[in-house]
Amino acid sequence: MANDKKQGPIRYGMVGGGRGAFIGGVHRIAARMDGEFVLVAGALSSNPERAKASAAELGLDPERTYASYAAMAKAEADRPDGIEAVAIVTPNNHHFPAAKAFLEAGIHVICDKPLATTLAEAKKLAGLVEKTGRVFVLTHNYTAYPMVRQAQEMVAGGALGDIRLVQVEYPQDWLTEDISASGNKQASWRSDPKQAGAGGATGDIGTHAYNLARFVTGLELHSLAADLDAFVPGRLLDDNLNVLLRFKARGTAPAAKGMLWASQVAPGHENGLKLRVYGSKGGLEWVQADPNYLWHTPFGEPKRLLTRGGAGALASANRLTRIPAGHPEGYLEGFANIYREAAAAIRAARIGQPPPHDVIFPTVHDGVEGMAFIEACVRSSRNDGAWTKL
Amino acid sequence: MANDKKQGPIRYGMVGGGRGAFIGGVHRIAARMDGEFVLVAGALSSNPERAKASAAELGLDPERTYASYAAMAKAEADRPDGIEAVAIVTPNNHHFPAAKAFLEAGIHVICDKPLATTLAEAKKLAGLVEKTGRVFVLTHNYTAYPMVRQAQEMVAGGALGDIRLVQVEYPQDWLTEDISASGNKQASWRSDPKQAGAGGATGDIGTHAYNLARFVTGLELHSLAADLDAFVPGRLLDDNLNVLLRFKARGTAPAAKGMLWASQVAPGHENGLKLRVYGSKGGLEWVQADPNYLWHTPFGEPKRLLTRGGAGALASANRLTRIPAGHPEGYLEGFANIYREAAAAIRAARIGQPPPHDVIFPTVHDGVEGMAFIEACVRSSRNDGAWTKL
Amino acid sequence: MANDKKQGPIRYGMVGGGRGAFIGGVHRIAARMDGEFVLVAGALSSNPERAKASAAELGLDPERTYASYAAMAKAEADRPDGIEAVAIVTPNNHHFPAAKAFLEAGIHVICDKPLATTLAEAKKLAGLVEKTGRVFVLTHNYTAYPMVRQAQEMVAGGALGDIRLVQVEYPQDWLTEDISASGNKQASWRSDPKQAGAGGATGDIGTHAYNLARFVTGLELHSLAADLDAFVPGRLLDDNLNVLLRFKARGTAPAAKGMLWASQVAPGHENGLKLRVYGSKGGLEWVQADPNYLWHTPFGEPKRLLTRGGAGALASANRLTRIPAGHPEGYLEGFANIYREAAAAIRAARIGQPPPHDVIFPTVHDGVEGMAFIEACVRSSRNDGAWTKL
Amino acid sequence: MANDKKQGPIRYGMVGGGRGAFIGGVHRIAARMDGEFVLVAGALSSNPERAKASAAELGLDPERTYASYAAMAKAEADRPDGIEAVAIVTPNNHHFPAAKAFLEAGIHVICDKPLATTLAEAKKLAGLVEKTGRVFVLTHNYTAYPMVRQAQEMVAGGALGDIRLVQVEYPQDWLTEDISASGNKQASWRSDPKQAGAGGATGDIGTHAYNLARFVTGLELHSLAADLDAFVPGRLLDDNLNVLLRFKARGTAPAAKGMLWASQVAPGHENGLKLRVYGSKGGLEWVQADPNYLWHTPFGEPKRLLTRGGAGALASANRLTRIPAGHPEGYLEGFANIYREAAAAIRAARIGQPPPHDVIFPTVHDGVEGMAFIEACVRSSRNDGAWTKL
Repeated sequence: MANDKKQGPIRYGMVGGGRGAFIGGVHRIAARMDGEFVLVAGALSSNPERAKASAAELGLDPERTYASYAAMAKAEADRPDGIEAVAIVTPNNHHFPAAKAFLEAGIHVICDKPLATTLAEAKKLAGLVEKTGRVFVLTHNYTAYPMVRQAQEMVAGGALGDIRLVQVEYPQDWLTEDISASGNKQASWRSDPKQAGAGGATGDIGTHAYNLARFVTGLELHSLAADLDAFVPGRLLDDNLNVLLRFKARGTAPAAKGMLWASQVAPGHENGLKLRVYGSKGGLEWVQADPNYLWHTPFGEPKRLLTRGGAGALASANRLTRIPAGHPEGYLEGFANIYREAAAAIRAARIGQPPPHDVIFPTVHDGVEGMAFIEACVRSSRNDGAWTKL
Repeated sequence: MANDKKQGPIRYGMVGGGRGAFIGGVHRIAARMDGEFVLVAGALSSNPERAKASAAELGLDPERTYASYAAMAKAEADRPDGIEAVAIVTPNNHHFPAAKAFLEAGIHVICDKPLATTLAEAKKLAGLVEKTGRVFVLTHNYTAYPMVRQAQEMVAGGALGDIRLVQVEYPQDWLTEDISASGNKQASWRSDPKQAGAGGATGDIGTHAYNLARFVTGLELHSLAADLDAFVPGRLLDDNLNVLLRFKARGTAPAAKGMLWASQVAPGHENGLKLRVYGSKGGLEWVQADPNYLWHTPFGEPKRLLTRGGAGALASANRLTRIPAGHPEGYLEGFANIYREAAAAIRAARIGQPPPHDVIFPTVHDGVEGMAFIEACVRSSRNDGAWTKL
Repeated sequence: MANDKKQGPIRYGMVGGGRGAFIGGVHRIAARMDGEFVLVAGALSSNPERAKASAAELGLDPERTYASYAAMAKAEADRPDGIEAVAIVTPNNHHFPAAKAFLEAGIHVICDKPLATTLAEAKKLAGLVEKTGRVFVLTHNYTAYPMVRQAQEMVAGGALGDIRLVQVEYPQDWLTEDISASGNKQASWRSDPKQAGAGGATGDIGTHAYNLARFVTGLELHSLAADLDAFVPGRLLDDNLNVLLRFKARGTAPAAKGMLWASQVAPGHENGLKLRVYGSKGGLEWVQADPNYLWHTPFGEPKRLLTRGGAGALASANRLTRIPAGHPEGYLEGFANIYREAAAAIRAARIGQPPPHDVIFPTVHDGVEGMAFIEACVRSSRNDGAWTKL
Repeated sequence: MANDKKQGPIRYGMVGGGRGAFIGGVHRIAARMDGEFVLVAGALSSNPERAKASAAELGLDPERTYASYAAMAKAEADRPDGIEAVAIVTPNNHHFPAAKAFLEAGIHVICDKPLATTLAEAKKLAGLVEKTGRVFVLTHNYTAYPMVRQAQEMVAGGALGDIRLVQVEYPQDWLTEDISASGNKQASWRSDPKQAGAGGATGDIGTHAYNLARFVTGLELHSLAADLDAFVPGRLLDDNLNVLLRFKARGTAPAAKGMLWASQVAPGHENGLKLRVYGSKGGLEWVQADPNYLWHTPFGEPKRLLTRGGAGALASANRLTRIPAGHPEGYLEGFANIYREAAAAIRAARIGQPPPHDVIFPTVHDGVEGMAFIEACVRSSRNDGAWTKL
């Protein structure tokens, strides 16, 4: 085993992602795209029948189709050809216990965001990752779009000067009306505090927006003031959040400020994640729906439209680029980049090495930060929007 | 005189707007565009030499070129062919005394925003307008773009259902560096509290954004939480404002929320005024730099791109439209629409009538509301961003 | 008279442009915008009653309201305060005789395009302009948008290297159905060969597209191959033209090639004039509906979005710019630029000088070239699209 | 074998696509994305050393790594676990002989475009496909973007009425300078008549544009007039083509007309494939670089922006959609759709059935049509752009 394990594709299993789920299928395509992973085990649903049927559809060996992640973690850890990694793609409330089980079984974890349902859980998980030394990848997938990497490299390289302003938003419209009532599975668990945690839109998409802003700017948040609403009558979790941000100062420059808007009730927006960053020397703009473009204005010069793979593309973008400029890459390629980075980290772990220095992925610490964001938003909003430290 | 006064173009004078000024020239073109106004008098600069030279350039009768607005108000009121209206286009600190002088002289006033430098002044002016019965037009010019009128009509007609969210922003980049130091006249007075009042970007462009949001939605603001900054060292007034908005509830629907961002330090933005409104039935988006378009998404249907003069254009837009769809109208036409509306009101006043019902223009009350906004922003920001009623 | 004539605004008259006309109103606004012209006489319609009513609406002196251009040319030439210039805004078939009458009366002419209904007429007019020495301005208004001037200056300055390709198009959709049947005045005369000449869309908008391409590139056309169609049953003139272009070679570089498409039956296009030019060193793109932008790609570098009044704007654009970047100028400002240039030429003529060197306007020679284009298109199309020299 | 062959993934081999090739990697990702194909054999390069090294990189069994497609076709046909399908991704001149070899060996073929280097070869291949009954898929991949399918369904359903105009273009800029001289492999073979055939840009991208227009409109071409150029000195094949199109009439409506432009010397364009179709009732526009959008204007109504997966998406688009609206799919997903359709056809062939009725892919007949297009373009251009039947 040792040998082929060091060279062959990575055997992985999946928790959640049965029929009717959205994100599980995304993970599977992402894992498959570069041929780095092979799916060999699953606990695809908490409903045993659905778990079985889903596994059959995916061609999983019935013997490696499990009724629970606990059973799966145990059994796979015991197999000589057991999984090296697991992808956890359940509703939020299962992230923590499942991740814990696999980490303790010595299995690397690729986990959906938000990391947990409470900050306390998240911190426990961070401790466990440190203790076990396993690779832990949180799928804040937007950070792996090539032009987001380009933005990150540009900011880090000083192209914008001192960062002053961050404007980030993630509007959607799919919860404009009360569709959980009509049985929409995606909507139901996301607006159920027991499954989703304390944040609705805050946890589901606000964390993505926040993570993206942090990733590109490298800034740390000092405090926030948040106004959370549930506009649809009867909805238990927020479907809109308006947040002011104050970042920690760096050096002698004034501390950066920002605004974050996330909404599931903004008609006309499908997945309108947009990040804008402004500094003393220039500005950047990136839009998820059109991810192959990055607008850059050096102050006092004409706007430039940078393209993935095109003139001006930097190393950090090019290493995650598969096809030529003008042929669009999309969401699945961005997601697959997370898996590609995870593969590099796991392959390094096979031989006892840390990930190569240019490999970047969201970690359990990003997950802790995300949970701190959610809890601060909820706390601030309950406290009439008072400024609240993370 | 009486007769021709009832039919001929409206004689007007100008206060401010001498050489090197920006907005004065805009007013003159706007007044000229439809042939409704003729400029016959001026106190174009507080610098007598510049006032004289500017007047000569404009072909004004030297006899009607005044050294001060006080002199002008008095002299013109006494002439049988005196001005019927005055355009006040000075730095903010002169708005109040000049407007007062002309109102008291019985002359209609077209005044730049913000209305004054304090809310107290603004309220006095409102009282004076009521007392004198003169027409008072505040040049919140963006409200007169045809597609803004369309947006207003659509919201009023219920196309968006209950309004839930308002996102408005007005980013610029011209103050990214400290250009007042190098003698830029426009920059200098705008960042001088004595001339501009308590707000920098807040007064200059924040009020435009706020006014536009109010105009289109018809909502009234309940309170705000504001974070004002001056990012450029040494700048005395804010060059950036991040604001959360809470509107007053209407009927049984949840109160609408909003965010307002205005900045003069956002590289890549020239005059990026943008308004987005979302309700229970749909969303709208309008961008000042591309003003002939209005995006409309009825929830659950494809996005529609409405165009000025095109299919779907409503009466309120069409009455301010001069040329066919696809031939862009711009800022000057929008500004001229304010003058066109002012002319209609002044012509009605000539015969003792109120303005026709479909004539709309920003009034002294909008100016009071704008000053209340500025003061609330400053107060909130000084109070660490606390929620502050208007 | 002499003195004030040398300094005051230019007195002009108008032929055509009565009630219900579109382009007459545009000319009047354009003439008024910069205060350079004052309208004092008119023969506004061939229908005497409409002529009279239209003149009254415009406040013209009844004494200077004429029943025909012939009468107007004669009477105005005899007046000491007679018009210095005339704007001819009639259907095409009146351009030639009216222009001839005014030129012969010593009056400068501002004339709508196309210049005439035949190339022969056009050439006669060119001779007459030369003979009389009068200023003759053809309102190919698109050439006066600031960013078109910028494009022209960039090409002339070598920013694109050797020009290889020109792609120009002017799609509209207003004649998709047979609206002339239902009495649309604009549609009726444009599709009547007696009034419009041999070209339908070719004369109305094809000439604009062709003129714009010539203006920006400075290239001369060698030959063309044209496919003209009238897609709407019963329409007598073309409503669509597909044309291949071969330009004359310059120096040792290969001759440039091009394509021109103009259509009145392309649903979704209002006035979709677009020009793209490609050379050995870069490319440009300009779109009339969004005229404040100019895309420029230096080969091998990122695309740049140049803006009117913004960073990178050149002298030729800035001299025709009225307001700051980000505040859009539109069609009327572009049109007014033609009048501004005409005013400069006429003022120079007042003192016996040629126009200043930086003053640019389309001349009678552009009109001759336009008529040659129309006739070549029609000839080529009738000859099964054979390559046809101009 | 029989059983698992009927259910398991499809075993396929690849001809071409070794190190340094672009399109081979695309095919492999596309084949992998949905888990329908597994790569088990290859003749990856005509250079034996590169073939071997490339195969090793891909983890191919050395025994199934072949020095030639001839050897591969023979050996694989003889294996009980031999490949069911082959992907041919070589320079054009190998398409015909390789496809012939595999068809004759009873193996399904997925082949890059253009189909061959001559029309005669193409027709022979069509005969062979008919004779062998094998599945033959030509990778005109753009036809498998969901919004292209949507466009096709809309046109077929009459949403545009009678089609009048087709405007299609495919500009690139990568051959603006002479990069084949500097050893660019992609550029070298594409501009070598021996490897590419008679067309340069015509074969490489002109055929894509033509195929896309045919696919969406369902129109057949009657004749064309083409102007082909090689703007870069010394280039042997065309790098730009300007073409007028005349389609065959259908019913009583006038025959549709069109224009096709393809270029490799248009700075600013990466892969600017764009299709616009106009009919008596509406217009459509689709752009490859932003493939999740489809503009639709029903004549007389506002423009609509249809989105993949969004409101208004039709069945033909939805069946090829993997992820929600607003999460962009790209070029690889479009390409993978071709493989998904190929898989459906091959699975049907396994049980002796024709492909399901809703499965659509470009066939050998599209390849014949493409070769006819290339030859007609070359013939017309050599004949001074004369109208030429296909």
